[in-house]
Amino acid sequence: MVMVNGIERPLDLLNSSKGKEVLVRLKGDKEFVGTLLAFDIHINLVLDNVKEMENGSQKKSLGLTFLRGDTIIYISPASTALK
Amino acid sequence: MVMVNGIERPLDLLNSSKGKEVLVRLKGDKEFVGTLLAFDIHINLVLDNVKEMENGSQKKSLGLTFLRGDTIIYISPASTALK
Amino acid sequence: MVMVNGIERPLDLLNSSKGKEVLVRLKGDKEFVGTLLAFDIHINLVLDNVKEMENGSQKKSLGLTFLRGDTIIYISPASTALK
Amino acid sequence: MVMVNGIERPLDLLNSSKGKEVLVRLKGDKEFVGTLLAFDIHINLVLDNVKEMENGSQKKSLGLTFLRGDTIIYISPASTALK
Amino acid sequence: MVMVNGIERPLDLLNSSKGKEVLVRLKGDKEFVGTLLAFDIHINLVLDNVKEMENGSQKKSLGLTFLRGDTIIYISPASTALK
Amino acid sequence: MVMVNGIERPLDLLNSSKGKEVLVRLKGDKEFVGTLLAFDIHINLVLDNVKEMENGSQKKSLGLTFLRGDTIIYISPASTALK
Amino acid sequence: MVMVNGIERPLDLLNSSKGKEVLVRLKGDKEFVGTLLAFDIHINLVLDNVKEMENGSQKKSLGLTFLRGDTIIYISPASTALK
Repeated sequence: MVMVNGIERPLDLLNSSKGKEVLVRLKGDKEFVGTLLAFDIHINLVLDNVKEMENGSQKKSLGLTFLRGDTIIYISPASTALK
Repeated sequence: MVMVNGIERPLDLLNSSKGKEVLVRLKGDKEFVGTLLAFDIHINLVLDNVKEMENGSQKKSLGLTFLRGDTIIYISPASTALK
Repeated sequence: MVMVNGIERPLDLLNSSKGKEVLVRLKGDKEFVGTLLAFDIHINLVLDNVKEMENGSQKKSLGLTFLRGDTIIYISPASTALK
Repeated sequence: MVMVNGIERPLDLLNSSKGKEVLVRLKGDKEFVGTLLAFDIHINLVLDNVKEMENGSQKKSLGLTFLRGDTIIYISPASTALK
Repeated sequence: MVMVNGIERPLDLLNSSKGKEVLVRLKGDKEFVGTLLAFDIHINLVLDNVKEMENGSQKKSLGLTFLRGDTIIYISPASTALK
Repeated sequence: MVMVNGIERPLDLLNSSKGKEVLVRLKGDKEFVGTLLAFDIHINLVLDNVKEMENGSQKKSLGLTFLRGDTIIYISPASTALK
Repeated sequence: MVMVNGIERPLDLLNSSKGKEVLVRLKGDKEFVGTLLAFDIHINLVLDNVKEMENGSQKKSLGLTFLRGDTIIYISPASTALK
C-alpha cells in the first residue's frame, strides 16, 4: 500500500478533522455544517454548532447533533469545501 | 484519538442525553420530540412523552415509544435544537 | 449507564408490552393495532387481533400476524398512543 | 420472558402455520395466498398453490413458489386474515 | 419441525428445481424465464436460455445469466407458474 | 447437489467469463458492456473497455472501471446476451 | 483463478489508482472527479481536489472529501474515463 498525504485509510481524514468544521451531505440533499467531535466505524458522527443548510443558506440551527452514518454521502473539511 | 468536549464516541452523546428531551428526525421527514430513556448500538431508541411533529407543530401524541434505529437521520438534544 | 423508568435497553419496552395492545407504524404509512405476543432482536413481531388502520379508521382485520422488523418505524403501547 | 398463547418467539407462529394457508403481503403492495411449506431465519418462504392477488381478486396462479424474505411486510394465517 | 412435501427448508425447492425452467420475478417488475443451473445462500442464481419478459411477452434473449439475489422477489418452477 | 453444465455455484459463471465480454445491467436501468477482469464475493467487478449503454446505443466510454456489486441486477456473457 | 492485466481482485484496480485522478459515479446521478488518496473494503474513499460535476461541467469544488462507499455505482481512472 502506498500512503499519500498522510492519509492511509479513509477514516484517517475523519480523525484529522476532529475539532474542525466539516460539511456533511446526506442522501435526499440535506446538508449540514458543524464541528466534528466524534465518529465511529459506521460513520455515525457527532457534530457541534450544527447548521442545516438548504441551497447554501441556513435553514435550522441544531447545536449538538448525532448523525447516523448510513444516510451520509460525503464529509468534507469546511476549509476546503466552503471556499 | 483526540477527545473533544468529553465526547469520544458518537454514542457518548446519546448516553449523556438520557433523561433529557431530544429531537429525532426520521427519513421521510417525520420528526419526534421526547425524553430519551434508552438506546442500543443499532440506534434503536425508547422515548417517553413523544410528540410527532409536522412543520414545527404537534401532529400526534404517542407517549412511550420504541423507534427503530434504521429510519433515523439525526438525534439532537432539544435544549440546543429547539432554541 | 443510568436507568430511567425501569427501561435500560430499548427491548425492555417491548418485553413489558407483551400481552398488551400496541400501535405499530410501518414505512409507507401503514399502521397496525394489535396485542403483542412475541418479538426478537430483529424486531420481528407477532401480534394478535390485528387491525390494519388507514387515517385512523380500520381497513382490514388480520387476526394473528407475523410482522417483519425491517419495515417498522415505531412501536407504541396503545394505552399511551391512542389516547 | 412471559409466553403468551404458546408463541414465545415470532418464528413460532410460522412453525405452527406449516401446512396451512397464509396471506403474505410484500412491499409494493403485492399479496400472495398459499400453503406454507417451509421458512428460514431470513423469512424466506416456500408456499404451494400460490395465488397472486390484486385488490382482493386473483391475478395469477404460481403453484410452488420461493419467496425472498426481505420483500415481506407481514405473514398472516389465512384462517384469521381472510375471514 | 414438520416436513411437508419433502421440502424442509426454502432452499430445498431451489435444489429440486436445478435443470428445470423457472420463472424469476425481480423488484421493479422485471421477469425472467430460464433453466436454473446454480444458486447460493444469497439466492444469487445462474440461469441458462434466459428470456427477459414484459407483460407476458419476450423482450430480450440473454442466454447464460448471473442474477444477483437481492433484487429477487420470487422464484417459481415454470411448470406450475406458467400453466 | 447436482451439477449442470459445469456450473455448480453462481460464481463459477463469473470465473469462466474472465477475459470475456459481459453485459452488466444495473438498478435504475444503466447498462455496461466490457471485458470482465476480476470479481469478488460481493460481486464487485472490474471491467475493461467499458461502454455505458442507453437504449442499445453507446452513451459513454469509460475504459477500466470498478463496479460496486450492490447496484448490479444481472451479468451475462456478451456472446449470448448480445446476439 | 486466472489473472488478467495484473488485476486479480477488484480492489487491485483501486490500489493501482492511488495518487491518480478518478471519476466516481454515485446513485442519484452525482459525479465526482478527484485524486484517490485512500479506500477501504467498504469502498469508502478519500479523494483530494474534488469537483462535483453535473452534466459534464463543474458544479462545486470540495477539496479533500470522504465519500461513503454505499452510495457509489462505479469508480474509473480518469485517464480512461474522461478521454
